[in-house]
Amino acid sequence: MMPETNSEHASMITCTAPVNIAVIKYWGKRDEVLILPVNSSLSVTLHQDQLKTTTTVACSRDFQEDRIWLNGKEEDINQPRLQSCLREIRRLARKRRSNGDPSSDVSLSHRVHICSVNNFPTAAGLASSAAGYACLVYSLSRLFGVDSELSLVARQGSGSACRSLYGGFVQWKMGERQDGKDSLAEQVEPESHWPELRVLVLVVTAERKPVGSTSGMKTSVETSTLLKYRADSVVPGRMEEMISAIRRRNFADFGELTMKDSNQFHATCLDTYPPIFYLGDISQKVIGLVHHYNRHYQETRVAYTFDAGPNAVIYTLQDYVQEFVEVVRHFFPPESNGGEFVKGLPIGRASLSEELIRAIGVESVPKGISYIISTKAGPGPCMVKDPDFHLLGPDGLPKKST
Amino acid sequence: MMPETNSEHASMITCTAPVNIAVIKYWGKRDEVLILPVNSSLSVTLHQDQLKTTTTVACSRDFQEDRIWLNGKEEDINQPRLQSCLREIRRLARKRRSNGDPSSDVSLSHRVHICSVNNFPTAAGLASSAAGYACLVYSLSRLFGVDSELSLVARQGSGSACRSLYGGFVQWKMGERQDGKDSLAEQVEPESHWPELRVLVLVVTAERKPVGSTSGMKTSVETSTLLKYRADSVVPGRMEEMISAIRRRNFADFGELTMKDSNQFHATCLDTYPPIFYLGDISQKVIGLVHHYNRHYQETRVAYTFDAGPNAVIYTLQDYVQEFVEVVRHFFPPESNGGEFVKGLPIGRASLSEELIRAIGVESVPKGISYIISTKAGPGPCMVKDPDFHLLGPDGLPKKST
Repeated sequence: MMPETNSEHASMITCTAPVNIAVIKYWGKRDEVLILPVNSSLSVTLHQDQLKTTTTVACSRDFQEDRIWLNGKEEDINQPRLQSCLREIRRLARKRRSNGDPSSDVSLSHRVHICSVNNFPTAAGLASSAAGYACLVYSLSRLFGVDSELSLVARQGSGSACRSLYGGFVQWKMGERQDGKDSLAEQVEPESHWPELRVLVLVVTAERKPVGSTSGMKTSVETSTLLKYRADSVVPGRMEEMISAIRRRNFADFGELTMKDSNQFHATCLDTYPPIFYLGDISQKVIGLVHHYNRHYQETRVAYTFDAGPNAVIYTLQDYVQEFVEVVRHFFPPESNGGEFVKGLPIGRASLSEELIRAIGVESVPKGISYIISTKAGPGPCMVKDPDFHLLGPDGLPKKST
Repeated sequence: MMPETNSEHASMITCTAPVNIAVIKYWGKRDEVLILPVNSSLSVTLHQDQLKTTTTVACSRDFQEDRIWLNGKEEDINQPRLQSCLREIRRLARKRRSNGDPSSDVSLSHRVHICSVNNFPTAAGLASSAAGYACLVYSLSRLFGVDSELSLVARQGSGSACRSLYGGFVQWKMGERQDGKDSLAEQVEPESHWPELRVLVLVVTAERKPVGSTSGMKTSVETSTLLKYRADSVVPGRMEEMISAIRRRNFADFGELTMKDSNQFHATCLDTYPPIFYLGDISQKVIGLVHHYNRHYQETRVAYTFDAGPNAVIYTLQDYVQEFVEVVRHFFPPESNGGEFVKGLPIGRASLSEELIRAIGVESVPKGISYIISTKAGPGPCMVKDPDFHLLGPDGLPKKST
């Protein structure tokens, strides 16, 4: 596969990559440089129609140096993790060519320009580094003609990025080797496996900036006695249970384990010294609301999970999504003259029974949730064929519109 | 010692007992009926000048049935835990008399009347059951002439009540026996051991009623995988460290371990399914404030601990209490025309440096803390000699004023 070229000078590739949301959480590294985790993890890849990163990479003999633009702003290319990805992908390309496979004619000595944008606001508080590094590594792999070991490269950009290299349900096996060669992502099931599964991102109006996950997990590894126990003795069994629940499309098992694992991750944050809090009053209210909703139906119909921030990600099924969104709207009434409350996959209005409202019975918090992104599981990274979508112009600089 | 009598008919005893605040937390029972804990715990007994329960017990051949009044309201005497205490104390008294010790002439066949009041509002959210059951059992023991195994009896009223039977620093050894005979409280050091230690109860303006500790710990034992690990593998070492820190009067060690153990207890609550939250936004802010304060001085000068509710209990030293209270007042400014912000042991005003205020740098929350109770470690239960303080009149009914 030859990279597309839209100028005499620059070989150029544009790809998109998805966000993923873990249901068995990654928290803690056993190797900070190689980014090797203390436990395996498992995530659902979200659909790129709602949430994606787009990245254009270009390579030319005219470029003086490697450069990168993120969301319209030039950033420092010398960040160690960016450098790791560039170095590793070039190493793989060289290895491949020395094995006699000239699948790309792009010179490895040429400098690259990288331009990347998200189709969702940073303010949404979604960890964009996973989609960003997955997209970078995938794009570079197409540019340089590399097609294996990508998850090892993406992992060294941002641990969870390796899971964004596949669609559907993806596990990141922690591996055992010191060199990290067996710490890689694998698809458990494709997105087509469970079409009824729906995802809602509840964007919480946050009042403070949370502790970053890199420094947070480092402190947790150093100070939490519960984290080590979780990683060694709890997660291995949960990985098996989760894979089984997904294979059987058993939402009750999937949802309950998702909630328990989110809670346990946040428990290890609280056991960290000084403690780390990601769940404020609004997040706690969402949790209460989900449990009351499920208790009302005596069935796990909805599940929450929280990453290193206040936003709730809700997993549910097609049949329940409309009513549940109405419940959220009822207990977190949005500004009536604000923008649309639900973005993404359309969700019709529903009426709620008095009985259900009474059964949930939490105090309502006007504007506690800014908006909802409605989505579902989706595919892994894709190459964009149409050169109109390149983010870099023929001169190798960001197009004005981006 | 003969019980005092202030009427022809009723033998009557009045005692007071203190509140205690654990620094190594009790959470989880291995036996629900005998109230045997899954781990040992350790607490500081607070001074009764600020926080105490007063209980009068009376016994008379004229009483038709056992009766109890709590804070002015008659309650059901048939609650199982009350019945356990009454049954056990009568059993001990019988045993003693059958051993030939007639230290009380009160007939064990007579019915008792019990009247109990706290000198602090229930709204303060302090677990009053520990002081209440300690006071009940201590009073009954004086009435019936029993003076050993009291902590076994009090424990069956409310687990942590056994620790309120002693002053100063008290451990509740979990024991190993199935019958609970070795699960008892012991004084580690008396209150005179560490006179510089000061205690502040920060009464947080709570918006919701927290999950009760009895049902909460039951759910935790049933569902939290981290709780079992904590109880079996973390707490034994912490008990030794805590006792050592107290013996050495090493505040840095005492304070750090106190905070870590509070956090780990709340972590196990979060690992419970459904999760239990006691730390809302205000509690989290107090935690942040304490860590920032200590970091500014590069020393642990102040420590927090939270029980099954939002209130913070602060341990600090005489030298720092004035400044720290001023910091609390600065970041949680009270209503200017409200009642006194600091109750209990008087604390002078202090001026804060701009540097300190900047170093703490949390967002201020007006009226986030209702008031502070300023106190210190204090003695165990006491008998009140002056019959004017009896809560029951000569007729065995509550006096009008109580």
